[in-house]
Amino acid sequence: MQSQTSSLGEFELIQRFFKTQSELMLATIPGSVKLGIGDDCALLKMDSTEELAITSDMLVSGRHFFPDANPEWLGWKALAVNLSDLAAMGARPLGFTLALALPEANSAWLEAFSKGLFAIANQFACPLIGGDTTAGPLNICITAFGSTPKDNAICRSGALAGDDIWVSGAVGDARLALAALRHELELESRDIEAIAVRMHQPTPRVQLGIALRGVANAALDISDGLLGDLRHILKQSGKDAEILLDRIPKSITLRKQSQTIQNQYAANGGDDYELCFTAASNARDVITKISRDLNLPLTQIGIIKAMKHSTPELELIGSSGTKLNPEEANQLLKSFDHFA
Amino acid sequence: MQSQTSSLGEFELIQRFFKTQSELMLATIPGSVKLGIGDDCALLKMDSTEELAITSDMLVSGRHFFPDANPEWLGWKALAVNLSDLAAMGARPLGFTLALALPEANSAWLEAFSKGLFAIANQFACPLIGGDTTAGPLNICITAFGSTPKDNAICRSGALAGDDIWVSGAVGDARLALAALRHELELESRDIEAIAVRMHQPTPRVQLGIALRGVANAALDISDGLLGDLRHILKQSGKDAEILLDRIPKSITLRKQSQTIQNQYAANGGDDYELCFTAASNARDVITKISRDLNLPLTQIGIIKAMKHSTPELELIGSSGTKLNPEEANQLLKSFDHFA
Repeated sequence: MQSQTSSLGEFELIQRFFKTQSELMLATIPGSVKLGIGDDCALLKMDSTEELAITSDMLVSGRHFFPDANPEWLGWKALAVNLSDLAAMGARPLGFTLALALPEANSAWLEAFSKGLFAIANQFACPLIGGDTTAGPLNICITAFGSTPKDNAICRSGALAGDDIWVSGAVGDARLALAALRHELELESRDIEAIAVRMHQPTPRVQLGIALRGVANAALDISDGLLGDLRHILKQSGKDAEILLDRIPKSITLRKQSQTIQNQYAANGGDDYELCFTAASNARDVITKISRDLNLPLTQIGIIKAMKHSTPELELIGSSGTKLNPEEANQLLKSFDHFA
Repeated sequence: MQSQTSSLGEFELIQRFFKTQSELMLATIPGSVKLGIGDDCALLKMDSTEELAITSDMLVSGRHFFPDANPEWLGWKALAVNLSDLAAMGARPLGFTLALALPEANSAWLEAFSKGLFAIANQFACPLIGGDTTAGPLNICITAFGSTPKDNAICRSGALAGDDIWVSGAVGDARLALAALRHELELESRDIEAIAVRMHQPTPRVQLGIALRGVANAALDISDGLLGDLRHILKQSGKDAEILLDRIPKSITLRKQSQTIQNQYAANGGDDYELCFTAASNARDVITKISRDLNLPLTQIGIIKAMKHSTPELELIGSSGTKLNPEEANQLLKSFDHFA
């Protein structure tokens, strides 16, 4: 990509890369947006039969992405991680705001960034409705809005004893792609190609989240690693769980790796943006149908149990059908902490 | 302030400085928040008779504040600038999300920051409902939500020919405080004390915005400078305006400065967070009553006129009652551009 720096001012920048495309989307998507970019606030129409789901994620250069990351992928991913949070509540996307700090008003970078951003915005009918731009170290903060039918959002706190635990798609590929990028291990180029998209342009499971309304009792999206994130459900629901490690779905590419790598990356690799959810066992047929309709694998990997002690416990069952010892389990339970 | 650095993890940090106080507020403010911090999304209850106003502002170290800025003031100001945007639409605050990038998890800094943040949050009954924390160069991104009665938000586009142009409070003090901090000019210490609060802890005009529903035809908050911001109203309303410079309200402290400094700082100093609004001339009595009720000066500084040419024009009338020449006018019309 050509690194052409221009002397764009703030208003010209917003107009050229964001406002025009935002207006195009608002003109074609019949939605809840009454007023978009250009006033002190955006305005959304409300509906008493709905609730508004709100999520905010901040992506920082050097922490969430490499400083030389492809800006088109970055635009995609910045919205994808927020849509993934909406999906986890069963919310339908309504729109988003973008606050962007840029070291310089580089038009080539901005053009690519906005291309990726509007590609996913259009795919999920989620228009840009406002935001802020400023000079500063590269930082992308998106706040996204979605609607769920009243009292129907899927929360982390709803898991019931006896629920199946499910996960969508396959997990661990984004971590494998990161390992290859960092040269922690070597992959064939066709393997890198196969999984790079999972790291750079994850697909938020929006349709799945909507389909799970009234079916799932609890859900979250897997951003910091499957098992670490699952523990949030256990904590907020006050439940134990048992996970069959061999059932955790892995891609063909990940299954070429050592058993240790497979287990580690699938269990707590992070950056997966799949959904983990729980549902009563009598919902299995419905869930199988949802999987078929969406052409998205959904795998039952364990069960929710009543809490035996004062804190939630997560039992990990290995290949032999026996419980992992505490040391083995701890290795797999490490979740990502931004300040660790 | 003691600079005590601890090894707080992300979740402990959120819990200690944000979640507990957020939960306290939600327990005491009967409001629209159904679900706060701790799930994939926050949830707001909706009402078909209302519209939701949304605004997002990003504050960056070295650009919006000095790197060694008092974190308590910073916490206040980060929410104040967003509440000011809600005020400009006539919206009542409902809640906000906070995305925060921090170089380190410094508990003394965080304690002071959250103190300032919750001080203003409590004052305006606007609870923290969600967000994100990450390591990175200091960056504060707040997205705030408010409600306005349906079809009653005050937009920039509604100014009518013949409207009076009003401004609340006094403008230019924040710029004067900045000049003193930068040693561009010398002030007596009691003068610095008198105006420092205008720079560090501005008061968003939330009650004024709500009182102006159905009274003001157009409004915005003054963040980049009075005259530059006023031009957004002219542009979006397709109108000209005439401003009597001598009428622009200035504090006693600013009036001690040279006429040039007074005019410059009041006209385009920026960071004022007062409201500029337009209203029919027959609303003067109502506006005078609002001013008295809120104990807040409201000053009529000019009038809106039909647009004479193809672009909006802003005529500035000086002390002598004559129009400023283009060069003088341009000096006063420079607005703040983050990439200029």
